[in-house]
Amino acid sequence: MKPVKIGICGLGTVGSGTFNVISRNQRDINARAGCDIIISQIGARRDNPNCNTGDTAVSRDIFDVVRNPDIDIVVELIGGTSVAKDLVLEAIANGKHVVTANKALIAEHGNEIFQKAKAAGVTVAFEAAVAGGIPIIKAIREGLSANSIEWLAGIINGTGNFILTEMRDKGRAFDDVLKEAQALGYAEADPTFDVEGIDAAHKLVILASIAFGMPLQFDKVFTEGITKITAEDVSYAQELGYRIKHLGIAKRGENGVELRVHPTLVSDKQLIANVDGVMNAVMVKGDAVGPTLYYGAGAGAEPTASAVVADVVDLARTLTADPEHRVPHLGFQPNELSDLTVLPMSEVSTGYYVRMNAEDKTGVLSTITQILSDAGVSIEALIQKEQAENVDTVPIILLTNRALEQHLLNAIEKIQALPTVVGDVTHIRVESLS
Amino acid sequence: MKPVKIGICGLGTVGSGTFNVISRNQRDINARAGCDIIISQIGARRDNPNCNTGDTAVSRDIFDVVRNPDIDIVVELIGGTSVAKDLVLEAIANGKHVVTANKALIAEHGNEIFQKAKAAGVTVAFEAAVAGGIPIIKAIREGLSANSIEWLAGIINGTGNFILTEMRDKGRAFDDVLKEAQALGYAEADPTFDVEGIDAAHKLVILASIAFGMPLQFDKVFTEGITKITAEDVSYAQELGYRIKHLGIAKRGENGVELRVHPTLVSDKQLIANVDGVMNAVMVKGDAVGPTLYYGAGAGAEPTASAVVADVVDLARTLTADPEHRVPHLGFQPNELSDLTVLPMSEVSTGYYVRMNAEDKTGVLSTITQILSDAGVSIEALIQKEQAENVDTVPIILLTNRALEQHLLNAIEKIQALPTVVGDVTHIRVESLS
Repeated sequence: MKPVKIGICGLGTVGSGTFNVISRNQRDINARAGCDIIISQIGARRDNPNCNTGDTAVSRDIFDVVRNPDIDIVVELIGGTSVAKDLVLEAIANGKHVVTANKALIAEHGNEIFQKAKAAGVTVAFEAAVAGGIPIIKAIREGLSANSIEWLAGIINGTGNFILTEMRDKGRAFDDVLKEAQALGYAEADPTFDVEGIDAAHKLVILASIAFGMPLQFDKVFTEGITKITAEDVSYAQELGYRIKHLGIAKRGENGVELRVHPTLVSDKQLIANVDGVMNAVMVKGDAVGPTLYYGAGAGAEPTASAVVADVVDLARTLTADPEHRVPHLGFQPNELSDLTVLPMSEVSTGYYVRMNAEDKTGVLSTITQILSDAGVSIEALIQKEQAENVDTVPIILLTNRALEQHLLNAIEKIQALPTVVGDVTHIRVESLS
Repeated sequence: MKPVKIGICGLGTVGSGTFNVISRNQRDINARAGCDIIISQIGARRDNPNCNTGDTAVSRDIFDVVRNPDIDIVVELIGGTSVAKDLVLEAIANGKHVVTANKALIAEHGNEIFQKAKAAGVTVAFEAAVAGGIPIIKAIREGLSANSIEWLAGIINGTGNFILTEMRDKGRAFDDVLKEAQALGYAEADPTFDVEGIDAAHKLVILASIAFGMPLQFDKVFTEGITKITAEDVSYAQELGYRIKHLGIAKRGENGVELRVHPTLVSDKQLIANVDGVMNAVMVKGDAVGPTLYYGAGAGAEPTASAVVADVVDLARTLTADPEHRVPHLGFQPNELSDLTVLPMSEVSTGYYVRMNAEDKTGVLSTITQILSDAGVSIEALIQKEQAENVDTVPIILLTNRALEQHLLNAIEKIQALPTVVGDVTHIRVESLS
């Protein structure tokens, strides 16, 4: 077979990782692809000291790559949603296949990009956009194609998982661990995307669309970060037999689809509760297969490159195929996507961990439990701590059974208004994942 | 696109599961495949009460299915290696693609079958043959195609894992749990294939060939069952921070490839050590991606059907593709398979758990440790138990550092010959999986 020529745009962490993996494993990769995969050109504003590009042609204008008539596949690794979008659309217009690791681009502009790709008869591959090296898109889109997917839940942001793991292991505070994560290079100087759940929301919306066969709807994802999780919450959760994980959850129900990213209590007996540090894992529940789990590194130069290169090999294998027979971008044929309603958070029901500080007086606890009961929220477990010295209040920790979020919020509003309850009432959602 | 017609041979557990999954999820499956997938014919010696085949044509001679000119894909679910082999070879000769869940057939006759399939321009798909519904073959063959795979280790027999889990959780004896597994339908009346590791060896050899790009060599797998594991071994292992898992391990080293199935001590901090009951999990370590893990149900009607139907969808998607561009059977192009040497067990090195009963006399322990040291085996941890009432000996439990199996066996031979050591010396291998 004739060689497949690729052009790499962007020579940052993932770009250099991709170059290095292809160079190092060239023999194995070609033996798998059934043809030679050649890096014909690199587009990068500057060199990368982690990457010896040797004789490979390097252009300082990344658009040279998408205009190079020799190139079959454009690998977009510059990130962001402005230049990257122009680059990808121009590549498609020029009849080139695209491989990208850009979750924001796919989550926010995927519908438009896939439509243009289909019209041009090319494929846009994006395995590396979700959970780094874990072949999770392939698993859902191809490996579980027999199933009606009921739900999926993932630890899909390594930075957040690192922070929560450190908080649990060492009883440290959020801010303290965040600073360490920044020093270690796990978190950006501006950590908003990671700790507020935006990065996870980008990835979740991609997984959900593939699982349920619906267009990408990034603006409909409910997103709550981990910045308000305290060391005490982590510790109380442990006492109750749970761990707090920042999960992206997509669930299909009778009334619509839930798309939500938030801190979640998960039983410590669950495999996913034991996924620690910067590692990622995604659980997928199919009606035929039951629960499955996929675990691996969610970021980093070579883990992400692993997914990028797998997409290149897939494309090399299908380059001559009739475009109608390729795996569709969102798993389902474009004309078969459904217009499932995304539910507002108030209509979602989960269990809840609720923590508050209350005066240690007779009747306080019964008033609180009465308010919850009136709102339709039943209590599964309760911890009332001893009053600490020099403190007028005691912490009360409740675990509720499944209830509608709106019902819980109604109850919390009333509890918060009690003169005997001091400060904010915290609530964190609980998922059984079964 | 024109419909794809399949014929199901065998209507046992997996056959009926396949029929039911396709019937129930027809809409989603067709929307993913991009064409209608139609069950045109079933070949089965008898009906299955779990499966209402309705109007579907049923033939009592399964060979009718492979001779039916209408059928594109033959789904072989009869099991065994004699009739199944004839059936698959005739299907190939008739130009039909094949999907099978038959691990024994692929492990023992795969080389011949793949060769004939390639000559005929058809594909034989076998995702369901390993780890049931977990898309592990797809993960290694496609998802990790960028990587040089260093090793893989899997819990790939649910029966064995159920037995070991029960032994640990409840302190029960092997024979006792085996009887329960038989009553629950997890183990066959003749449990040899499961508890002696033959089933796991079938699956391991398939995974190893795909990971390393080498022909299937079932006869070279070292296989040791779990029948000799005692409740005390399980309990001592726990005391040392380990769990005993029956793992299939394939590892590539400088001198060759290790292919081995045996009980293994794994640190309880490892995710795979926490995979319990009948569930399966496979860890795969690639040089770029690092460690990854895939978890799910390894058997059962619908989990296995999930993999069977995924293969059907894959085939439907590539039916019109140039055969040269399909994913090769063993991940690597047939002319690129390498003749890696499979190492004999004596040349493999691991850590060891060693247990013996010795007289409680001065000098016994020092003699034993001296023998190990002379053989080149160093000790990492040691538990010496108190002498129980009415017993003349004390159990001595050792954990060794990595050593060549031959060196350990030499030492054990000498230890066993000591007059102060009573009964057999047990050794179980320890793997760090990192």
